[in-house]
Amino acid sequence: MKTLGLIGCGMIGGSVALAAKRHGCFDRVLGQDSSYAAIEDALNRQVIDAVLNDLKVVDAVCIAVPTQSIASEVTRVVDEINSSVPVFDVGSVKGSVYRELEQVPPNFIGCHPVAGSHRQGVQAAKADLFQGSVCVLTPVESSDENLKIQLMDFWESLGARTVLMKPDQHDRAVALTSHLPHLLAVVAVKQIESNLSLTEDVMGSGFRDFTRIAAGDAKIWRDIFANNYDNLCIDFRQFADEVFSMLRLANSDPETLERELRQIADFRSDLDAK
Amino acid sequence: MKTLGLIGCGMIGGSVALAAKRHGCFDRVLGQDSSYAAIEDALNRQVIDAVLNDLKVVDAVCIAVPTQSIASEVTRVVDEINSSVPVFDVGSVKGSVYRELEQVPPNFIGCHPVAGSHRQGVQAAKADLFQGSVCVLTPVESSDENLKIQLMDFWESLGARTVLMKPDQHDRAVALTSHLPHLLAVVAVKQIESNLSLTEDVMGSGFRDFTRIAAGDAKIWRDIFANNYDNLCIDFRQFADEVFSMLRLANSDPETLERELRQIADFRSDLDAK
Repeated sequence: MKTLGLIGCGMIGGSVALAAKRHGCFDRVLGQDSSYAAIEDALNRQVIDAVLNDLKVVDAVCIAVPTQSIASEVTRVVDEINSSVPVFDVGSVKGSVYRELEQVPPNFIGCHPVAGSHRQGVQAAKADLFQGSVCVLTPVESSDENLKIQLMDFWESLGARTVLMKPDQHDRAVALTSHLPHLLAVVAVKQIESNLSLTEDVMGSGFRDFTRIAAGDAKIWRDIFANNYDNLCIDFRQFADEVFSMLRLANSDPETLERELRQIADFRSDLDAK
Repeated sequence: MKTLGLIGCGMIGGSVALAAKRHGCFDRVLGQDSSYAAIEDALNRQVIDAVLNDLKVVDAVCIAVPTQSIASEVTRVVDEINSSVPVFDVGSVKGSVYRELEQVPPNFIGCHPVAGSHRQGVQAAKADLFQGSVCVLTPVESSDENLKIQLMDFWESLGARTVLMKPDQHDRAVALTSHLPHLLAVVAVKQIESNLSLTEDVMGSGFRDFTRIAAGDAKIWRDIFANNYDNLCIDFRQFADEVFSMLRLANSDPETLERELRQIADFRSDLDAK
């Protein structure tokens, strides 16, 4: 009987549990969560099979908590288990986690399944969440080579393509593809809400698509913004410069702007075709 | 036989033509377009029934061209038709159109159906595009009261809810709900493309939702950015201030940030429930 320990029974953790059982990687999942309601919900939905009381019984540990709590959970878990038991997280920031761990345990490798939803909590967990997605692994020099291969196999069993990145490289990449877009969507919603008497009649489907991500979990995103703060500041400064330069073109050089917009629209359409 | 004249056979104009015929508002649609290929496509798809050669035969005129060309098309059309024939446009900016028309013809009222798609051209036209959408009408003091009622009835027949706004009020509203989001999405795509070797493996479904609108028609958006330039500059400056203030909170006051993010997430979720 292979047992997965799950620390954090939210949407991503719950999806790992469901997918791991569906694909036969683990026979059962034991779970912990700081919220009693989340544990109860995960039990009722059979996302976890029982409460995790003794870390000694598990064959691997998945840490699925907000990013500011990952390093302390890793430290707590590795202190209690055999050093041959794999430990991995599923958080959206990596650099700060590795920096916070003074010595990176050789049985820990950071993972980031690039899959998710604006929906929150274990009720949004899905066994097929990782099918066709990418999972980034961020092994460092001290990481065990076998563990890396074991975890790559695990994520591939769940339907993901695995990609290896350095922790900081990962954070720079997702700042651009996920964290900055999230921040922009949040601020766009706030701006609409502050001007609601003016705007409420004219929100179309484009605005809904553009801001869908802003419905995501507040605690998770609070942590991500704090943990990827430096990249977000750099990227948004560059972003703002680019917005002003496009606005200048709108006012002074429409042909160049049209060419740029066409090129960007073509690039964006090609993303859907892939 | 009631005939609609259509100036501009693109996605929105084509959808007006299809919807107007489906709902029995007009029996046939005659079309013009600066592109011969667009005319041919509109004829082949039976979006228009014939080429519009003589404006004298139409009972109403829909002007569906990029916003920088609307005022000159209105002037050209009203010069050739009887002053009892309604003329309306479907553009996304209104203030600049009214300012460019030195005297607003009493048989012209600006309209903006807040419906659309990132897809381009008459092949994306749909008879049900306006079903459940909002259409803003921007009558001014000189506008004919009967014409206003006639046009409200027309859009309501097509399934839209009609809203009356002043032209400048309309432009301020859609700057926030549509034009700024579009500009932000475009710049986000450009930033990803400029860093493609870093980012290409980590674009998830959230990024695709967030940037879907950036695939829109380059010429239409070039004109919108130029015609709503002042509002965009004001709104983006305020937007950038808000982004920096959120980032400061991430770094200094996570509880306040979490509260703000939760409130914004709840507001955004409620939009979908409506």
